[in-house]
Amino acid sequence: MEITVQKYGGSSVASSEKILRIAEKIAGKVKAGGKVILVVSAMGKSTDNLIRLAREVASTPDPRELDMLLTTGEQVSASLVAMALQSKGIKSKSLNGFQAGIKTTARYNEAKIVSFDKKKIIDMMQELDALVVTGFQGITEEGEVTTLGRGGSDTSAVALAAALGVDCEIYSDVAGIYTVDPRLHPNAKKIKYISYDEMLEMASLGAKVLHSRSVEIAKKFGIKIYCGSTFSDEEGSFVADENIIIEQPVVTGCSLMENQTQVFIKHLPVDYSLVRRIFEKVATEGLNVDMISIINSESDLVVSFTIVESKKKHLQAALSKVLSDLKDWNVEYHTGYVKVSIVGIGMRSGIGVASSFFKALQNVPIKLVTTSEIAISCLIAEQYKNSAVEALVKEFNL
Amino acid sequence: MEITVQKYGGSSVASSEKILRIAEKIAGKVKAGGKVILVVSAMGKSTDNLIRLAREVASTPDPRELDMLLTTGEQVSASLVAMALQSKGIKSKSLNGFQAGIKTTARYNEAKIVSFDKKKIIDMMQELDALVVTGFQGITEEGEVTTLGRGGSDTSAVALAAALGVDCEIYSDVAGIYTVDPRLHPNAKKIKYISYDEMLEMASLGAKVLHSRSVEIAKKFGIKIYCGSTFSDEEGSFVADENIIIEQPVVTGCSLMENQTQVFIKHLPVDYSLVRRIFEKVATEGLNVDMISIINSESDLVVSFTIVESKKKHLQAALSKVLSDLKDWNVEYHTGYVKVSIVGIGMRSGIGVASSFFKALQNVPIKLVTTSEIAISCLIAEQYKNSAVEALVKEFNL
Repeated sequence: MEITVQKYGGSSVASSEKILRIAEKIAGKVKAGGKVILVVSAMGKSTDNLIRLAREVASTPDPRELDMLLTTGEQVSASLVAMALQSKGIKSKSLNGFQAGIKTTARYNEAKIVSFDKKKIIDMMQELDALVVTGFQGITEEGEVTTLGRGGSDTSAVALAAALGVDCEIYSDVAGIYTVDPRLHPNAKKIKYISYDEMLEMASLGAKVLHSRSVEIAKKFGIKIYCGSTFSDEEGSFVADENIIIEQPVVTGCSLMENQTQVFIKHLPVDYSLVRRIFEKVATEGLNVDMISIINSESDLVVSFTIVESKKKHLQAALSKVLSDLKDWNVEYHTGYVKVSIVGIGMRSGIGVASSFFKALQNVPIKLVTTSEIAISCLIAEQYKNSAVEALVKEFNL
Repeated sequence: MEITVQKYGGSSVASSEKILRIAEKIAGKVKAGGKVILVVSAMGKSTDNLIRLAREVASTPDPRELDMLLTTGEQVSASLVAMALQSKGIKSKSLNGFQAGIKTTARYNEAKIVSFDKKKIIDMMQELDALVVTGFQGITEEGEVTTLGRGGSDTSAVALAAALGVDCEIYSDVAGIYTVDPRLHPNAKKIKYISYDEMLEMASLGAKVLHSRSVEIAKKFGIKIYCGSTFSDEEGSFVADENIIIEQPVVTGCSLMENQTQVFIKHLPVDYSLVRRIFEKVATEGLNVDMISIINSESDLVVSFTIVESKKKHLQAALSKVLSDLKDWNVEYHTGYVKVSIVGIGMRSGIGVASSFFKALQNVPIKLVTTSEIAISCLIAEQYKNSAVEALVKEFNL
């Protein structure tokens, strides 16, 4: 039994007409002898609409109830897709999170998948041509409904593919993974193959093609991910093990994170246990910080990092708690930055990438630089965003 | 622990503003020391919208998938109501069908409740001020999602109240039960007390205030039902055991069923096993037939009954199957009828009700009459609808 796992994003199932087109596509595959498990997101903007409703009845909706609310979106699209498949003569059923036995951790709004009811799914695939599973959701051991966070349907699909030991196809309205976001640079090239590590850097650095966690799972289980367009035959991109990728440029892509704020916590005593407590607090609050630097003189410490602008208030509250015993400390926020990065596993062996990077950006004032084994990032003022991306695209032929 | 079970219909939770008003009302009750279990329907027209979507992707949507789709509606309203309650400082949680352990039979679209997870609900009520449970839905022993049919949330609420041994309050935009549908007769009187049997006749005869099955359950377990208006303090109506009802008019109400078709199956051989097979088939197809009459001569049989007009096609298909071995039979459909009924337990002992009924309708051509112990019904042409209702209202002082 040859099973393919395919994931369809919200824009792909945004209307009954689009759902019928997907059913048509699957019908072709089934007639050719294939069997498909479809993992679906909520229709179009339905998740946003549900969040809006939640905010109308509660200023900070309870995370548990929010998950109860949001999981309905995928159940709607899954049942409609199953009906559409049936109307094309395909034996199909839908399963929601609890029926598919998608067990997760108990962290509402950002749960992690622990396991699937693999046996049930395989048994059902003996009878069916196509099974439709709700993405984004699961249940805890106690039967509480959870969601996996924004983009979580990618993770549902890859985790399911991993459980079944098959590859995973992710379909959306973007026809693959590009060297640069095509909205920033319309001539961006499509990447044919990208390694897990590069994709992880790209995802964490702001490329919104795939949910980071889905790439982590794919890497762990050696699952190949294909990212393609739902409604066109244009060839997409593969995320795979670097060893199977033959042609490997030094720099694979360029990514951008917008709305960055640089935070400076000043006048701290020279006490590194305090630094640990700050970052512990920040982590337990679920605040993502980046580009950390610590400057110490004999008399005091300055802790600096970046954060997305929208989290400033949340951060301020967290810092006020952890530093409540101290006086004299203060925080400065410098807003209006973007973080531009280049990514490529070729950097591991490639020489001179950093110098090319700085050469390309010679006319851009750089506030901060961080590097990883396969990426170089810099923080620059928003106004230099386009010229920096253009210069990097040109320098590295992206 | 004093628990009240309250059910809120779709129009009562149609917007976030209305949901907040319900939360406000519950907050008052909780402050006074009460605990409430709320059973909620889907918001406003959301069930209709989901059905429309289903019809767009499949001409006859699969019953299983339809239930998967429709149950999302109550999960949306339940989670929003729980959030709204929390925003008013009330300890609250929502449960969907599977979490509340609402076990049902396996008949999709019209399942019957078998049991609740009473222990879980009582345990949760130790901690909470208000529990919100999705109406209309349940799950089978195998974990398949089911619905109870139109109006099923009434049944969910009454069954839950019965399981807990408490009374049940049903809130909607109608302030109680009327002697006649106020849309037909604006001066209709509100009924203060109505017996289970009368309410069952009224419900099955077309009064849309309560789902019949909810009244059956209330009768079986001796649960008193209060029907009132969600957003006004106007006093509503009680459905209760006839023994506690002191003041008892002979005729309690008048009801109307529209879009009736009279069916005549003609030229059947004189074979009563055939009649049995016809009605067996009709029952297994879930077709409701009414006002049955059988006319036999020496040479043939005519079987006649009424059915709602929209089921004609379905009936024709069912008859074609069961009568496939016969020739010469044919079916006539006479459309454009309504069924008008009067109901009252006082009829059991009251004398002369039938004669008053026919006297009132002396100017209306009557096609068919049926009676039960506590009701008299007649089939008349649509054009006489209003004059018949007016005459009955006047005759029986409704």
